[in-house]
Amino acid sequence: MGKSTEFQAISAAVMTELRAITGEAYFFTDESAREAHSHDETEDLRFLPQAVAEPADTAQVSAIMRICNRERIPVTVRGGGSGLAGGALPVHGGLVLSMRRFDQILNIDKRNFQAHVQPGVITEHLQNTLREAGLFYPPDPSSRGWSFIGGNISTNAGGPKAVKYGVVKDHVLNLEVVLPNGEVIETGANTLKNSTGYNLTQLIVGSEGTLGVVTKIVLKLQPHPTQSLLMLAPFRSAESACAAVAAIFEAGVTPSGLEFMERSAIEWAIRYVGETPVPLGDADAAHLLIEVDGFHLDALYADCAVINEVLERFECGEIFFADNDAQKTALWKLRRNVAHAVKKNSIYKEEDTVVPRAELPGLLRCVKEVGARYGFESVCYGHAGDGNLHVNILRGQLDEQAWLHEVPKGIREIFTYVKSMGGTISGEHGIGWVQKPYLDIVFSPVEMTLMREIKKVFDPNGILNPDKIF
Amino acid sequence: MGKSTEFQAISAAVMTELRAITGEAYFFTDESAREAHSHDETEDLRFLPQAVAEPADTAQVSAIMRICNRERIPVTVRGGGSGLAGGALPVHGGLVLSMRRFDQILNIDKRNFQAHVQPGVITEHLQNTLREAGLFYPPDPSSRGWSFIGGNISTNAGGPKAVKYGVVKDHVLNLEVVLPNGEVIETGANTLKNSTGYNLTQLIVGSEGTLGVVTKIVLKLQPHPTQSLLMLAPFRSAESACAAVAAIFEAGVTPSGLEFMERSAIEWAIRYVGETPVPLGDADAAHLLIEVDGFHLDALYADCAVINEVLERFECGEIFFADNDAQKTALWKLRRNVAHAVKKNSIYKEEDTVVPRAELPGLLRCVKEVGARYGFESVCYGHAGDGNLHVNILRGQLDEQAWLHEVPKGIREIFTYVKSMGGTISGEHGIGWVQKPYLDIVFSPVEMTLMREIKKVFDPNGILNPDKIF
Repeated sequence: MGKSTEFQAISAAVMTELRAITGEAYFFTDESAREAHSHDETEDLRFLPQAVAEPADTAQVSAIMRICNRERIPVTVRGGGSGLAGGALPVHGGLVLSMRRFDQILNIDKRNFQAHVQPGVITEHLQNTLREAGLFYPPDPSSRGWSFIGGNISTNAGGPKAVKYGVVKDHVLNLEVVLPNGEVIETGANTLKNSTGYNLTQLIVGSEGTLGVVTKIVLKLQPHPTQSLLMLAPFRSAESACAAVAAIFEAGVTPSGLEFMERSAIEWAIRYVGETPVPLGDADAAHLLIEVDGFHLDALYADCAVINEVLERFECGEIFFADNDAQKTALWKLRRNVAHAVKKNSIYKEEDTVVPRAELPGLLRCVKEVGARYGFESVCYGHAGDGNLHVNILRGQLDEQAWLHEVPKGIREIFTYVKSMGGTISGEHGIGWVQKPYLDIVFSPVEMTLMREIKKVFDPNGILNPDKIF
Repeated sequence: MGKSTEFQAISAAVMTELRAITGEAYFFTDESAREAHSHDETEDLRFLPQAVAEPADTAQVSAIMRICNRERIPVTVRGGGSGLAGGALPVHGGLVLSMRRFDQILNIDKRNFQAHVQPGVITEHLQNTLREAGLFYPPDPSSRGWSFIGGNISTNAGGPKAVKYGVVKDHVLNLEVVLPNGEVIETGANTLKNSTGYNLTQLIVGSEGTLGVVTKIVLKLQPHPTQSLLMLAPFRSAESACAAVAAIFEAGVTPSGLEFMERSAIEWAIRYVGETPVPLGDADAAHLLIEVDGFHLDALYADCAVINEVLERFECGEIFFADNDAQKTALWKLRRNVAHAVKKNSIYKEEDTVVPRAELPGLLRCVKEVGARYGFESVCYGHAGDGNLHVNILRGQLDEQAWLHEVPKGIREIFTYVKSMGGTISGEHGIGWVQKPYLDIVFSPVEMTLMREIKKVFDPNGILNPDKIF
């Protein structure tokens, strides 16, 4: 918070103090540990921390924070390291607080449809464990195989299921949080309703590790749907595909997944995965992957019939229906691997635009038009049902001047358009480190000041994930 | 905020200044206007404001706030006046800011399933207007016939539909808010997902008019269900009825309404309404009113069959199925009139307890046991599917000493039990003025300090709804 010049390096004496908290085996200052915690999945950015601590419990987190607050040592909390906005980058060095050992599912309360979990539980592991009990925690970011539930909370993550079931914030009831001064608070209650004081829970969700360290989570669950149907629909025009999205909802159906992939996205994914259940047609410019789920198969077939009618109005080609679980898995695998495929093949910047869903065609047009003017290619795909379009801008043959100085101007134009449509610059990835330069597009100086002042209430010394978001 | 001694009365000069903003016709200092704005629906409490302003637009609200902030005049924002926790009581006098003229539905965006509305729109009017367009805004507090949508936001209201569709906070995308210093902010974006900065929207929702004045609201909508089934199930024991609630969810069904009424609640309601579609049986100790809704009637019948099987396990009597819309309306009318019926017949205190839903039987037992010890009768009913039990404590023959000094000790015991079960002291009514004495049960001093400091960020002079919540 403009206090970065006041940060202190970790002295030898403080190193000893911190090491005593976690024990020798869980405190690291060696090159390889520091390197491993210097980056997440954001572009090719690297910042070396001075040390890495792996606390075992809330008391250890509290003790560490108390010391770091006293000594003005920057602390960056780290989950699975799957972030795409640089939220876990230790940009001021200092201490990385890894939540790796907070990996316990503490309680699955079937009677109350709640799970009490630690933040270091891997999202997919939690989902699989719950599913065995017939329970469902919907948020499923593409990174769920290695992202931590605590990281999902810090970015207010989404994923394909969000279109029907909402994002992470809609499934968090209560949090235990360690403040920068070491105090431990509870943000809410373990209840479905709560009108008791300010909503601290929702203030922490999406705050990207800048307000406190989440050490325990109470999640709201629901019965796991027993049925689902999945289809892949090709379109002659990417804009038609986008336009069909809003029309499906207008017809009264709420899919449990509604994903858009332009041709290049699905091509890259097929190459990366090495197989596809359905070959691309020459004229296919884009696809919608559409899922409906529930408990009554007849109702889902009826929904699919309605969807079919809608798609026919938008120059849709032949729809591929997944006949069995293997085909469903194969289709979702393609969609989930688009980002990895792009990353493997190019240096890129991933933008996380979101607009009201009926504005998607205009957003896609804007991205392509701006790209043409600035000379960059983009691969677009994402959670179309939420109006959330991931725009992967490829470096390709651009020189350093263009990549570092011209492309950001194009991004600024895209974000300005997004804002003018009632949208915003991150739907589920967060602002972190790399989207900061664009924040003035969506927030007024008064709004920015409010957020900075809230930050100061929680973290007066500004030690927690400094220079993130703002 | 401990600043109450610094508040100023509205001087003649400031009266003139304020009157010039709204115009003569919308600024009131006469006895009858002051009296009409001195109370809401909370017990028999009355506090006279010095003046009442009815601004027409955001600019007028901003101008009024700027003056009141400069002059340290307390400002209490008022919606429909249906509050049950005293949130709209002008306890320090000053100015009541009535949002009555903010009564426009600005835009119904069918393509994006959004409504842009002013805060003075009556909730039921909004719902009826949306329904004509096939759209659904679910939150339906019992007061919806006269409460304002802005008031619903300030208390994070619920209602019967919350069990399936969530409370107000789950349906608010974005807010325009006037800060105490007159600045106007937007809290979010008009999008289903948002990971851009702190969630100011959810900080305002439920803040009971202590942080800013909501002047515009963007709501998330969904397709209106086309089918519903409704049943009333009698039980020999109130605890059995409560125990059946969690079992219905465990069987995999999520009703769109699951209301509990103990015998006295439904008896009072029948007397008050003057009719009932189904007579009470002599042995009926409590009832569950259970609704399922959706788009596929066959699926709803299947859900009802599952519910039936569950109810049979809990000593349920003969279930009454509503055969037509008239019967459905009559059953809901009974439920919605319980509070009015109780109020008509006794001085009472209404408590808004909420626990994880499987803990309901224990909560009911606790209420009755405490009542027996302190000598008060209670009428219990509420949104059982959410674990949200309204406890109406009747004054009956209690003398002033018992009513003012002993009963609060009993309430404290009930709230302490609620907290120990993971619950909290208000599910949907708010803390306002009357629940403040119990806040220490649910919040630690550190948590209280955080909230007070957040209040100061928005309202450094503490003029907005002073001495509410804290």
